[in-house]
Amino acid sequence: MALLYGNAVVGQSGGPTTAINATLAGVIYGAMNCDCIGKIYGMRNGVEGLLEERLIELNSIFEGCEDKLESLKRTPAAALGSCRKKLPSPDKSDYEKTFDKLIKIFEKYDIRYFFYIGGNDSMDTVAKLSEYTKSCGYEMRIIGVPKTIDNDLKGTDHTPGFGSAAKFISVVMQEIIKDTQVYTIPAVTVVEIMGRDAGWLTASAALGRLVSGEAPDLVYLPEREFDIDEFIDDIKEILKTKPNVVVAVSEGIVCKGGQYIGDSTQGRGVDAFGHKALSGTAKGLEMIVKERVGCKVRSVELNLPQRCGAHIASECDISESFGVGRAAVMAAEQGVSREMMVIIRNNDAGEPYSSVFGHMDIELIANKTKFVPAHYINERGNNVTDECLEYILPLISGECYPAYKNGLPQFFTFDKN
Amino acid sequence: MALLYGNAVVGQSGGPTTAINATLAGVIYGAMNCDCIGKIYGMRNGVEGLLEERLIELNSIFEGCEDKLESLKRTPAAALGSCRKKLPSPDKSDYEKTFDKLIKIFEKYDIRYFFYIGGNDSMDTVAKLSEYTKSCGYEMRIIGVPKTIDNDLKGTDHTPGFGSAAKFISVVMQEIIKDTQVYTIPAVTVVEIMGRDAGWLTASAALGRLVSGEAPDLVYLPEREFDIDEFIDDIKEILKTKPNVVVAVSEGIVCKGGQYIGDSTQGRGVDAFGHKALSGTAKGLEMIVKERVGCKVRSVELNLPQRCGAHIASECDISESFGVGRAAVMAAEQGVSREMMVIIRNNDAGEPYSSVFGHMDIELIANKTKFVPAHYINERGNNVTDECLEYILPLISGECYPAYKNGLPQFFTFDKN
Repeated sequence: MALLYGNAVVGQSGGPTTAINATLAGVIYGAMNCDCIGKIYGMRNGVEGLLEERLIELNSIFEGCEDKLESLKRTPAAALGSCRKKLPSPDKSDYEKTFDKLIKIFEKYDIRYFFYIGGNDSMDTVAKLSEYTKSCGYEMRIIGVPKTIDNDLKGTDHTPGFGSAAKFISVVMQEIIKDTQVYTIPAVTVVEIMGRDAGWLTASAALGRLVSGEAPDLVYLPEREFDIDEFIDDIKEILKTKPNVVVAVSEGIVCKGGQYIGDSTQGRGVDAFGHKALSGTAKGLEMIVKERVGCKVRSVELNLPQRCGAHIASECDISESFGVGRAAVMAAEQGVSREMMVIIRNNDAGEPYSSVFGHMDIELIANKTKFVPAHYINERGNNVTDECLEYILPLISGECYPAYKNGLPQFFTFDKN
Repeated sequence: MALLYGNAVVGQSGGPTTAINATLAGVIYGAMNCDCIGKIYGMRNGVEGLLEERLIELNSIFEGCEDKLESLKRTPAAALGSCRKKLPSPDKSDYEKTFDKLIKIFEKYDIRYFFYIGGNDSMDTVAKLSEYTKSCGYEMRIIGVPKTIDNDLKGTDHTPGFGSAAKFISVVMQEIIKDTQVYTIPAVTVVEIMGRDAGWLTASAALGRLVSGEAPDLVYLPEREFDIDEFIDDIKEILKTKPNVVVAVSEGIVCKGGQYIGDSTQGRGVDAFGHKALSGTAKGLEMIVKERVGCKVRSVELNLPQRCGAHIASECDISESFGVGRAAVMAAEQGVSREMMVIIRNNDAGEPYSSVFGHMDIELIANKTKFVPAHYINERGNNVTDECLEYILPLISGECYPAYKNGLPQFFTFDKN
């Protein structure tokens, strides 16, 4: 494969996570140590900022400053800013104009390497840009680096960002269970967890079952139709044996007929990609349990801290997220393009968990969703299997803490530009 | 003061906190090292369990097991179980019967020391029990040890449990602010914080202002009447200068005329002490902002993790909470009774923060509330002053982490009895 000399650009897209800056740090580290890459630019707010030429030269910030890179690695959200912009399809009127503008910016800055850290929708951007640069003969190596707390990307064993979100959820769930156990009066606590279509994060709430033996009594994923009558029956049954019932529920659970539980109390509408923005599933269930069981009920929506809880990040996740960013640069240097980086688990029986990085054709991945498979959910559909938890458990191993000053974490910030 | 030989009992009462077990550990440690105290018993579920003679002998569990005491210290919620039971007043028909039963239990177990760890309502229990034992001539030393995340007890500089809750809130607020900064479209994020009547915890959300310079744009405490029109004006004004507005709001804010914002969306009723159980204040404001400002709005209720977030406890708080428990035993040994332990801050100008423990007549404390004083709130009533933050900041210093195994915290649990 011929060597390609030039500059590189990196961007972050989609919803922020605890680990997306670790991947950014990995790309920056990789690019600074790559002989073929001169400068590494960061796009502010993903392709939205790129189209406005809002670029920041990163070498001068990070070269010789390992402490800054380390701080970036432990900082939540997207330090470069993010966007939800989808590039136009070939059948759209602004297609030519948009991509032409991008090519002109690439030429101006001699950008030959493009790294885009994002979720499913961001891989769509990578696919379209790959298509266009190829068709117009602009030589460029374009790599998508996965990130999503939802773990719903195909082709990779798991996604960077998932482990830290799963760790926050499972740690907090251990604490909530302790909190709910202090009183003797019957009470139900419903904890709502992120995950629009895939139940990976909700499944993580049950990890304690393998470790401390304490876990939610009931776990409901969006992959299975939710039956309110069965739910109420299950709660009443458990209340016969203990006073405190804890339920973990995905924000996206759907009843027969396609009705979301949260529908009545939410009003956020749909996002730019047409996804329904949900809220209030736990609140909805709280009201139902109050009415039909009649005991004390509390709903807890874990909300934003799930995706930005850097104060209790997974060491495994942060380390892999950095590694996959660095590996993306190495792959691009070797000629890889139009691919998404993936994490491959070493599945040798009896061996401790380990992983390596690979890459995969973006077309096989973009716009697809990896659901929790049927055999990871129990027969009644009210919990996950041990096999499911054994898959997730290694991904929350180790504690990655930020540095603290005067009691508060010290996070990395780019100067405004 | 004459020496009093006998056994001791310790109980936990009221809402759980991250630090109430550290105080329990302090009492156990103190009792095990006190020459006058033979056995130390734990009451399961406070006075509720005591009346049912549900006692657990603690010496055999903890003697020679420093690791267990250390684990208890870092475990959230109330390991002995808690209750919300209020002992009857002298004018109630069950007064004699209830207290007579308690005295019989004390006699049976030769209990001469009574330590009760709790909030405002628990100090009421201490006061009544002191009154009765005195009137019937049963020699007993009775000490209340404060705990409440709300920091609303009079007589003490601050309450054990407050520092850890304030730390969780201020750390997570730093992360949420990072999360909200990633997009360029105008958006308002409303974060709801516990604190029924006093705004100490909500004020803590702003601590970052003194450390990182990043803090919520608007902070509303229940001590000031909430004006919806001014709130909307303030948001519109801030949106002119930046796209992301972050609001910290107490669950208990009240509009002119006494109307709670959360009223329309909540339905929890009142608790055993007649307090209104609130929820949905942020959700209510979300709807109001959506309607009147028209931008993207998200509400986040920090909920239970505020009071059980042991994974990021304050070292200062856990250390003081243990210390005040131990000091309670020493005070009782020296003859103190019918008093609540307090924390006294060393206020020497220019000196780093330090504190000592003292005690105070329970009658001066029980059933009173310490509000955030007027000069800690800015003139417009939409933020707190630096002086307020300087008071709180030392209380979140240091990070106290639990031990982890397989990625999850290892908490202490008493066997069921």
